[in-house]
Amino acid sequence: MSPRPLVTLLTDFGTRDPFVGIMKGVILGLCPDASLIDLCHEVPAQDVLGASFLLHTTVRVFPAGTIHVAVVDPGVGGPRRPILAEIDGQTFVAPDNGLLSHLFATAEQRRVRHLTAQAYWRHPVSSSFHGRDIFAPVAGHLAAGVAPARFGPEIGDPVQLEIARPRVDAAGRIHGTVVWVDRFGNCITNIPQAEIASIVGRGRIHVHAAGRPLGALVGCFGDVPPGGAGAIVGSAGYVELFCSQGNLAHQWALGPGAPVVVGADGAR
Amino acid sequence: MSPRPLVTLLTDFGTRDPFVGIMKGVILGLCPDASLIDLCHEVPAQDVLGASFLLHTTVRVFPAGTIHVAVVDPGVGGPRRPILAEIDGQTFVAPDNGLLSHLFATAEQRRVRHLTAQAYWRHPVSSSFHGRDIFAPVAGHLAAGVAPARFGPEIGDPVQLEIARPRVDAAGRIHGTVVWVDRFGNCITNIPQAEIASIVGRGRIHVHAAGRPLGALVGCFGDVPPGGAGAIVGSAGYVELFCSQGNLAHQWALGPGAPVVVGADGAR
Amino acid sequence: MSPRPLVTLLTDFGTRDPFVGIMKGVILGLCPDASLIDLCHEVPAQDVLGASFLLHTTVRVFPAGTIHVAVVDPGVGGPRRPILAEIDGQTFVAPDNGLLSHLFATAEQRRVRHLTAQAYWRHPVSSSFHGRDIFAPVAGHLAAGVAPARFGPEIGDPVQLEIARPRVDAAGRIHGTVVWVDRFGNCITNIPQAEIASIVGRGRIHVHAAGRPLGALVGCFGDVPPGGAGAIVGSAGYVELFCSQGNLAHQWALGPGAPVVVGADGAR
Repeated sequence: MSPRPLVTLLTDFGTRDPFVGIMKGVILGLCPDASLIDLCHEVPAQDVLGASFLLHTTVRVFPAGTIHVAVVDPGVGGPRRPILAEIDGQTFVAPDNGLLSHLFATAEQRRVRHLTAQAYWRHPVSSSFHGRDIFAPVAGHLAAGVAPARFGPEIGDPVQLEIARPRVDAAGRIHGTVVWVDRFGNCITNIPQAEIASIVGRGRIHVHAAGRPLGALVGCFGDVPPGGAGAIVGSAGYVELFCSQGNLAHQWALGPGAPVVVGADGAR
Repeated sequence: MSPRPLVTLLTDFGTRDPFVGIMKGVILGLCPDASLIDLCHEVPAQDVLGASFLLHTTVRVFPAGTIHVAVVDPGVGGPRRPILAEIDGQTFVAPDNGLLSHLFATAEQRRVRHLTAQAYWRHPVSSSFHGRDIFAPVAGHLAAGVAPARFGPEIGDPVQLEIARPRVDAAGRIHGTVVWVDRFGNCITNIPQAEIASIVGRGRIHVHAAGRPLGALVGCFGDVPPGGAGAIVGSAGYVELFCSQGNLAHQWALGPGAPVVVGADGAR
Repeated sequence: MSPRPLVTLLTDFGTRDPFVGIMKGVILGLCPDASLIDLCHEVPAQDVLGASFLLHTTVRVFPAGTIHVAVVDPGVGGPRRPILAEIDGQTFVAPDNGLLSHLFATAEQRRVRHLTAQAYWRHPVSSSFHGRDIFAPVAGHLAAGVAPARFGPEIGDPVQLEIARPRVDAAGRIHGTVVWVDRFGNCITNIPQAEIASIVGRGRIHVHAAGRPLGALVGCFGDVPPGGAGAIVGSAGYVELFCSQGNLAHQWALGPGAPVVVGADGAR
């Protein structure tokens, strides 16, 4: 017996409406044996790039074969295409609006299809809830074993939004930005662990945020006394700024886009 | 092998307390094979009629045989009856306080029972959490295959709250109200698609809200430029007011009960 | 066929980030047949003792064999031990920071182990997300049938935080405190039903909160007219203060720690 199909959902639908429950009803109606996991439904409304970053940092823990349904879709009902993307062993169902930009950028293998086979949709298709009428039914059929090729033709030009990358200045300091603030007020940046590796060993690594000195890069939250600020390599693999037992984003008024600089005492 | 039983939950319990998790523990303790779906737990506290509308617009996507547990229950512990209702192929477990009013109003077939068979309850029954002690255990036993007739005798007089219906004036304009505001600030009205059909084709259809001209009835959100307001036939099958890429409810201070008028340029 | 393993999750991770979904992905990757239940993810950030109380009042409804993963973990990455506790037929995976204090205090049988067998962890182990890297993988392996003894050696000194207990004064009045405020503004105290039993029958039982007379102990919410305040023995088995159809915590500015006194008219 094969394991139960795993389907995750990431949306900006929130939880005060039944939108997500409706999508789940559609999926389980088509594949009663699926296991459903909520990744996140509190993506700021219509924040496509923030959701793209979340997906990228999240999906690596899921087993091969997982189906991810992602719906942050300000253009619903308009001309943007619905797509299915097979990326490094997992499958994504989403609008073609850049929601998979981070995943595309790091994919080793990808195959993207335009969802055109309306036989796998729910009819009538509304103009405002393709989560229910296109994405959930496609995910349900996929989970039930329908092959990806049945849903539509391959395309080579899915939307790829520009992703802000950190840069290294002449003095060897890394310049990045905050890209996500979590519930605790920790500020996740776009500076990956690998980038930091290049300056490790050159002395104490210090971090500036929004132009002010924040603190040192440490090993864990507890290395900074309560109330103090610092940075760690966070669980997502990126430099993450925090206030020990506090809320850094509130206290420093930081949000997505805030500039962050990381440098070693002994930077060149 | 029969598909796994599907059980949904709709409450006003929110998610900051373990109330919903407790109900799920009771259900899965009785029927480990059930699949559970959260419909919505953020119904405004004790908003029976709002929850009734949500149920009505939601349950149509669920497969026949789905069991829905609905607990918005300001009268818990008092004389209101707990009931089980079979409506058009799906089963509902709820307090008899009007929570099923919209479903009853549109039911083609219904059979309602008073839950009296205490053998299917959890004991001792608390006075404040019948979700845990009556509704969840009944749903669990139902999911495990106990026949509805075992839970109590049929009744003919479940509570039916009055539902505000739109009216058509002498000029052919349809007068309704906002009944639900979603996370995006879209305002769902009580004006169904069928009502609009009667004026389609008589010219541009325009909408007033709270006495002010709002905009036109369009095909999808994208038909209105960013920041502009309009209306669509929403995914629930009702006229829905929106602000393109904005939050209409905030910007226009609209909430449940706000008057809405829909008319055609060529109205008689 | 044995029933599907039941795993619950209680954290302070909230739902605006994918932390909980990530933990579920890890668990289902190891045990695809597990049923997952969210107990609560809105524990106030780092409120270990509040979470301990919630667990204590919640787990009794779950079937024997349930696995509970609890992560409220301000010391993550530091020296605090990860533990596995078998308590009265259920299993808990948590940091050893007092999160199981209420359960330990009332346990009839318990066996606690230090999680040291790194073969059951996810590598590399981050310094800030042991929910993903230690607690979820251990829960997944447990659900898949690995015996508790495999995860590490038994310990006899898990952290036990001091739990405030009610006291009875010379006049027979019971003095306790609010320990949890629920979504409705009901204030759950640390005064258990058994304590109240000692004064039942000595006349009307009245309750003071924050030094002011609140109302009587009644049988259910509906025994107090709308807008009035009172107390019941709540569903958790503790005295609970409420405002009928209102929000007591807001109206009386009550929160955790607020003093509560319960006495009978005929107290000695």
